[in-house]
Amino acid sequence: MEIITPAKRKELVIGLFGFGVVGQGVFEVLTKTSSFNARIKKICIKDPLKKRRFSETEFTTDANLLIEDKEINVIVEAIDDPEAALHILRRSLEKGKSVVTANKMLVASHLEEIISLQKEFGLPVLYEGACCASIPVIRNLEEYYDNDLLRSIRGIVNGSTNYILSKIFNEGIDYNHALLEAKQNGFAESDPSLDVLGTDAANKLSLLLTHGFGNIVDPGNFIVEGIKRITANDIKHARTQRQKIKLVATIRKTDENKITALVLPQFLNEGDDLYSVDDEFNGLVIESSFADKHFLKGKGAGSYPTAAAILSDLSALRYDYKYEYKKWRSNEYYEFTNDCQLRIHVSSLSVEHLPSDRFIEIEEQHCGPGHSWITGIINASQLAGHDWWKHEELSVIGCCDLFADDIKDKRIRRLSLRLAGV
Amino acid sequence: MEIITPAKRKELVIGLFGFGVVGQGVFEVLTKTSSFNARIKKICIKDPLKKRRFSETEFTTDANLLIEDKEINVIVEAIDDPEAALHILRRSLEKGKSVVTANKMLVASHLEEIISLQKEFGLPVLYEGACCASIPVIRNLEEYYDNDLLRSIRGIVNGSTNYILSKIFNEGIDYNHALLEAKQNGFAESDPSLDVLGTDAANKLSLLLTHGFGNIVDPGNFIVEGIKRITANDIKHARTQRQKIKLVATIRKTDENKITALVLPQFLNEGDDLYSVDDEFNGLVIESSFADKHFLKGKGAGSYPTAAAILSDLSALRYDYKYEYKKWRSNEYYEFTNDCQLRIHVSSLSVEHLPSDRFIEIEEQHCGPGHSWITGIINASQLAGHDWWKHEELSVIGCCDLFADDIKDKRIRRLSLRLAGV
Repeated sequence: MEIITPAKRKELVIGLFGFGVVGQGVFEVLTKTSSFNARIKKICIKDPLKKRRFSETEFTTDANLLIEDKEINVIVEAIDDPEAALHILRRSLEKGKSVVTANKMLVASHLEEIISLQKEFGLPVLYEGACCASIPVIRNLEEYYDNDLLRSIRGIVNGSTNYILSKIFNEGIDYNHALLEAKQNGFAESDPSLDVLGTDAANKLSLLLTHGFGNIVDPGNFIVEGIKRITANDIKHARTQRQKIKLVATIRKTDENKITALVLPQFLNEGDDLYSVDDEFNGLVIESSFADKHFLKGKGAGSYPTAAAILSDLSALRYDYKYEYKKWRSNEYYEFTNDCQLRIHVSSLSVEHLPSDRFIEIEEQHCGPGHSWITGIINASQLAGHDWWKHEELSVIGCCDLFADDIKDKRIRRLSLRLAGV
Repeated sequence: MEIITPAKRKELVIGLFGFGVVGQGVFEVLTKTSSFNARIKKICIKDPLKKRRFSETEFTTDANLLIEDKEINVIVEAIDDPEAALHILRRSLEKGKSVVTANKMLVASHLEEIISLQKEFGLPVLYEGACCASIPVIRNLEEYYDNDLLRSIRGIVNGSTNYILSKIFNEGIDYNHALLEAKQNGFAESDPSLDVLGTDAANKLSLLLTHGFGNIVDPGNFIVEGIKRITANDIKHARTQRQKIKLVATIRKTDENKITALVLPQFLNEGDDLYSVDDEFNGLVIESSFADKHFLKGKGAGSYPTAAAILSDLSALRYDYKYEYKKWRSNEYYEFTNDCQLRIHVSSLSVEHLPSDRFIEIEEQHCGPGHSWITGIINASQLAGHDWWKHEELSVIGCCDLFADDIKDKRIRRLSLRLAGV
């Protein structure tokens, strides 16, 4: 064992792909941290005619000029297209270059291949910025929560939808205006449907699942609902209960060997740590047997916060850090399941669309002119792989106590049927 | 570069010193994580007659049996006495054993010696549990906030005083009863004056300063005030303003090259992340140029949370992790100063004790029967090394905007002098 001194750290010569919100952030952050022993040698862009804020000298449209450059030892990938990004990643590793990316879709969709490429070429691929941008969650799940027995992770992991919901709840702005503002502030994905349909949150969920619990699950297997179908009635309902609605990604052990993961809008009470995570902030509540409950909050979108995470990956590369995927490799990971009982709120304009027969137990039901709803317990397998609940007349929101067994020992709520003004 | 697989990780054979709240926690946590490749071979205790909850076989009162045991490769130090702990630490390193400790007083008082011993013997000393127990802050400051330009760290770092203040503010329990409860729950230090006088917070502050900014400063140089002299009037004052009082440790750059650090009770508004850190929880707000604002919250006291941090240190030892003290070694750290302008609230039973002449600017003053106070700006050097403000008739609390320049550009508050019922 020998103390590593800063002098031993190698210089990083960077090839940067992409010069959008994230790429420019990386450029600026590196410019402003001159003490950091790294320099961007070349930047590969798609459109040579687009106006750039910096000198044009380092720019090229030829990917090969970066990949084949023997001096470049790290590729920072900051483009949108996951397939093109995978191609760049593969070729970079082949040419002996480490890779840093913040592309959650790339990582979530191709994780097994990325792990196997890392092994084949003995080079690291780091992606702290791919999950909750600036919040150091991947590396903490890998290293700090290595052995403590994790029970659950709940989080607001998409800055764009959180910004929109915050505007709606805190400032009374309507959905379309809030979405526009999110785009203008650079918080939304270039294709905002990835945000509002929950796809981006599902990609991040899959990374949390891998590094937290060792499962590699295609995001397509998760129950995923975005914020697009939340209605004015739902918002009013939340306000009446002094609650907010947030888009929450949840991972939870359902028993000793099984685990579930899903993305749902959820009603949150003021006492919930996630309640106060507003605007483009992300927040995570990590529960474990010994450390108990940890709450982490930080900016989950935007140029600098993502660049800060990339910078920390670059820093880690200087001492040859790599993810070990210990939990996944250990073969002791959990079986992924959608067989668990959820407490959800289903609302509709009219009572006949309400799927009463899907519920195991109806805890509360309301029928009224223009707004009817059911709160009750449903088996998650009724949602997974089914699309009845994606019906345009329905909106589905998780309750504060999302998992039915969370309040098993609370006394069973009285079923109340209120008929208003019929 | 080669992927480290779990198989390569070495087995840890542990010698444990101390079997109090923390020592027992470590024992239990290791018992319950059987997959973790570590075992406690021997436990050194002071009092052989004290009843132990586990089989007596591993217990001894002879420190040498642990230090001289060639099979033991890690010493976990969980005793109270910092001088005895230093002796154990030194001897353990001499004998080729790594050391894990959660003893903040040990580390804060002897850090330079501990760094030099690590270098001399080429062995790590890890102490994640010494600061905010379960919150992974030391390693994140070392690794994740390695290059981002930190601006400030503010935190609730003492679980015991936070528990007491929470009981007072949320449940209306009086100070002495709350302290008793804290002791009964194992949140208080064995000498609770370390908690209530702010000494424990100052020790943790010094660790945050070293790992966050590279300074090694003896806690004796900080302005430190605990919670003991907070009066019923102060609590009433906070309530009137819809604020809470919390004991906050603060580090802040005062200009490009200078930094200050202090521990003061502080009024907090509801919008402050630290406002909602209650009971034995600790919380930290880390501000930096790029990642912006991070908030971390977790249990800062208690048996399992501290043991969880020790477990994560043990886990890190398996891949030869050690602190590099990069910021300190870089010689680019900041000059520590107490020359900065603070906004404080000084209250007293009678107006004649109020030190009006110490203030640069009085923003608000109140004189009334049995409660007079001044809110204004004072140079911190008026507090550092002076004891006029420790006068039994006075209590000193930081304002929400503790640093005067935080609201430089807000319009200057009107000086209002209210004379009530005189």
